[in-house]
Amino acid sequence: MSDKLIIFDTTLRDGEQSPGASMTREEKLRIARQLERLRVDVIEAGFAASSNGDFEAVKSIADHIRESTVCSLARANDRDIARAAEALKSAERARIHTFIATSELHMEKKLRMTREQVLEQARLSVRFARNLCGDVEFSPEDGYRSDPDFLCRVLEAVIEEGATTLNIPDTVGYAIPELYGNFIKMLRERVPNSDKVIWSVHCHNDLGMAVANSLAGVKIGGARQIECTINGLGERAGNCALEEVVMAVRTRRDHFGLEVGIDTTQIVPASRMVSQTTGFVVQPNKAVVGANAFAHASGIHQDGVLKARDTYEIMRAEDVGWSANKIVLGKLSGRNAFKQRLADLGIELESEGEINAAFARFKDLADRKSEIFDEDIIALVGDESVTPEHEAYRLLSLEQQSATGERPRATVAFVADGIEHKAQSEGNGPVDASLKAIESLVKSGAEMLLYSVNAITSGSTESQGEVTVRLQHGGRVVNGVGSDPDIVVASAKAYLAALNKLHSKQERVAAQG
Amino acid sequence: MSDKLIIFDTTLRDGEQSPGASMTREEKLRIARQLERLRVDVIEAGFAASSNGDFEAVKSIADHIRESTVCSLARANDRDIARAAEALKSAERARIHTFIATSELHMEKKLRMTREQVLEQARLSVRFARNLCGDVEFSPEDGYRSDPDFLCRVLEAVIEEGATTLNIPDTVGYAIPELYGNFIKMLRERVPNSDKVIWSVHCHNDLGMAVANSLAGVKIGGARQIECTINGLGERAGNCALEEVVMAVRTRRDHFGLEVGIDTTQIVPASRMVSQTTGFVVQPNKAVVGANAFAHASGIHQDGVLKARDTYEIMRAEDVGWSANKIVLGKLSGRNAFKQRLADLGIELESEGEINAAFARFKDLADRKSEIFDEDIIALVGDESVTPEHEAYRLLSLEQQSATGERPRATVAFVADGIEHKAQSEGNGPVDASLKAIESLVKSGAEMLLYSVNAITSGSTESQGEVTVRLQHGGRVVNGVGSDPDIVVASAKAYLAALNKLHSKQERVAAQG
Repeated sequence: MSDKLIIFDTTLRDGEQSPGASMTREEKLRIARQLERLRVDVIEAGFAASSNGDFEAVKSIADHIRESTVCSLARANDRDIARAAEALKSAERARIHTFIATSELHMEKKLRMTREQVLEQARLSVRFARNLCGDVEFSPEDGYRSDPDFLCRVLEAVIEEGATTLNIPDTVGYAIPELYGNFIKMLRERVPNSDKVIWSVHCHNDLGMAVANSLAGVKIGGARQIECTINGLGERAGNCALEEVVMAVRTRRDHFGLEVGIDTTQIVPASRMVSQTTGFVVQPNKAVVGANAFAHASGIHQDGVLKARDTYEIMRAEDVGWSANKIVLGKLSGRNAFKQRLADLGIELESEGEINAAFARFKDLADRKSEIFDEDIIALVGDESVTPEHEAYRLLSLEQQSATGERPRATVAFVADGIEHKAQSEGNGPVDASLKAIESLVKSGAEMLLYSVNAITSGSTESQGEVTVRLQHGGRVVNGVGSDPDIVVASAKAYLAALNKLHSKQERVAAQG
Repeated sequence: MSDKLIIFDTTLRDGEQSPGASMTREEKLRIARQLERLRVDVIEAGFAASSNGDFEAVKSIADHIRESTVCSLARANDRDIARAAEALKSAERARIHTFIATSELHMEKKLRMTREQVLEQARLSVRFARNLCGDVEFSPEDGYRSDPDFLCRVLEAVIEEGATTLNIPDTVGYAIPELYGNFIKMLRERVPNSDKVIWSVHCHNDLGMAVANSLAGVKIGGARQIECTINGLGERAGNCALEEVVMAVRTRRDHFGLEVGIDTTQIVPASRMVSQTTGFVVQPNKAVVGANAFAHASGIHQDGVLKARDTYEIMRAEDVGWSANKIVLGKLSGRNAFKQRLADLGIELESEGEINAAFARFKDLADRKSEIFDEDIIALVGDESVTPEHEAYRLLSLEQQSATGERPRATVAFVADGIEHKAQSEGNGPVDASLKAIESLVKSGAEMLLYSVNAITSGSTESQGEVTVRLQHGGRVVNGVGSDPDIVVASAKAYLAALNKLHSKQERVAAQG
């Protein structure tokens, strides 16, 4: 068996399926570039057949990513597989990942198919995919809850048809490490020609054991690929967290004896980018990437004796990309310095127009805030309104006031489809009044699911506030993110950003995996 | 071996050691009451000898809790143990938990003691504790990284001295399930009279495996007590999460065959209370208690076929205490209805004065917000200013305004030590201006480590904003929480609440565990 462990990141596919985590094509490409810097082996970029938006996102990632294999999910049918192959055409290395459910429950209740039908469809789909792509992964959905005899027959058939990777999902997060590890082992022992393929694990975290289950699949079962996501993003309780599983393999190399190709210093930047893009916060006590994961990184110094670091630490904060905030730019910094800093941060903007827009926002921020930190720059670029050509709505100005005992009031001026509007409203607070003012003209009818604010630079309220607004309308859920030193302005920006997403024609169809 | 699994909650001890998670005596008592409703077997209430504040907190919990065993941590010395026994005097069931490090690294670098000294101190301390209390737990700190031969000698000695529970901590979160399980098994096989005590596991989550490690300690190792915290709160990446480990044992009863006494419907209320009290957010993709953990609980309905629920769900949201927001009270609700709702929510206020203060705030809120949800009531009660007798600072009124292109301004009136003040300031945003206004008079010099806002009722910005402010000053870290429909007002309240905590004389000494 190889001693190389393949890291397959599915932040952009299974992660994006989280209610509220959907991303635009530009956001997905930005994250894909960060995943490439992280040196993940495979990037599952999306589910090309699920929507035109997802097709374009997979295609765009296939166009730009050179180092990592780019993969698209596809149901086990010719149309899905052909769409995946088409989206992946320009990829340096492409993979088609096709799946069909094999548990009794899923076959009967969801697919309404017999065992023989499922077996035949799996076989034909892998055959079809192999004619389009040399690298084909097959997943029996809900595999861990499938009848082992039937599952072995399916896996044997798809190996015969040329599948190169077999992935065994614990779709509902039901597994326990030793049971899951032995399940993979049993399959590898029973399925003929099992040594011709790479075995893969895909675990969900419903019982808090996705990382341990994945590692048991590797250590006990002999799998050599782990499917995971940044911050453990994913439906329900999410997927196996990339940062945890990678650091476990690194920290306990004595036990696992495996190599991973990941550049771990890109872990924290990747975590921040995914969190800022999706609006899914990372809790302070999250392993590896939480603000408290390394005591000294949070700026807190314990009283008492200064102890040897390894007394309480098994990893080093700098190895996973934690570094102190640095004042990098200010009011007098020029466009070149700004561009250079973007490059240092690994941020690539698509066009000169985007860089100019971002630089204009940077200057505006620098007028109001003397010290600009890396986090401020990331927020600036993450802000939707950097790409004005895509915007239906854009904030022009905002005035608001509140006083105890009086009803807060706000006046908001904004552009909607090229026309300037001004609206006024009262509200329960100045944020509520501002959003009501916007809504009084836009009349989106969207329901707000989430509103949250974080200070971007750990420091004070002098820093920018980053507001995330999650709206739901007509079965779609979108996030808008806005940042500004003024929390009310940031809220209005976030609301308009979310409205822009609702307004855009891209459709996202939730898919199962 | 017994088929009962003992749940030992250490939210109030190891959880509180998280930088920024320190709690007041009142907060700890409120959480202890919720833990009792949750029916945890043992509540580790604190570390009595570490400070007067912690002593009082343990004592107060020992005074009020009747169903759960109340435990205090104590270093392995007579003074600590005597203080623990004193604090626990009134407990219905008391436990003293004493510990000393046994790994070479900790003995040499932290304790600067020889093996023989450590062994002798462990023996004498357990002997001393047993004379004061019939229920004594012993923990060899960093036990998992200790030399097994030496560790066996220590454990043998403390069993001889009458320890009733032996807890084997993975202090740095370095373990892997099968290795940790086999380590416990080896200890139980080698240590004489190991069947006379209950074995316990205590795992940290640095590599994301605290739950799996704990369960391996139970299944492979034969442990019958798990130490855990609500939301996995704890130093660095935190402890084993109670909600995950309990639901794993429940959901996989087929595998574990163990009974837990927990009332799981109290899990989500406990999670919310701990999160609101400490200001530590729970990420949406957190297992069991995250907002997305149960898709249908987040109000999101998947498109497509309505499938059988068990296709994707292994637990039911209602079993862990998720329920829809209910409009419970409004403007016309009276004091009795309010008091009844508090009782339904399991909130017990200490005095009539507290109930009156909370009711006054409720009426004030109902004037501004037509629908009052359970979350609003919890926030109202969690708000520091419910107990005005403890306050040094209290907000009277606030006026603020901002307009694009102008510097935001705020005027804040507040009481400081009984005297009314009014202060004005400009700032980068209205929140910044308000806090600067307060600080211009108070001159606390505190550094702000965190500022965050969440809408309390998932709904809209009409709902109250709950602001958490974390301040650091003179080696202490405190959180202040404030809620109000006006986010600027909520921020000022949170800031004053944090200043009140800094002002109070209670000292907290961080301790190791």
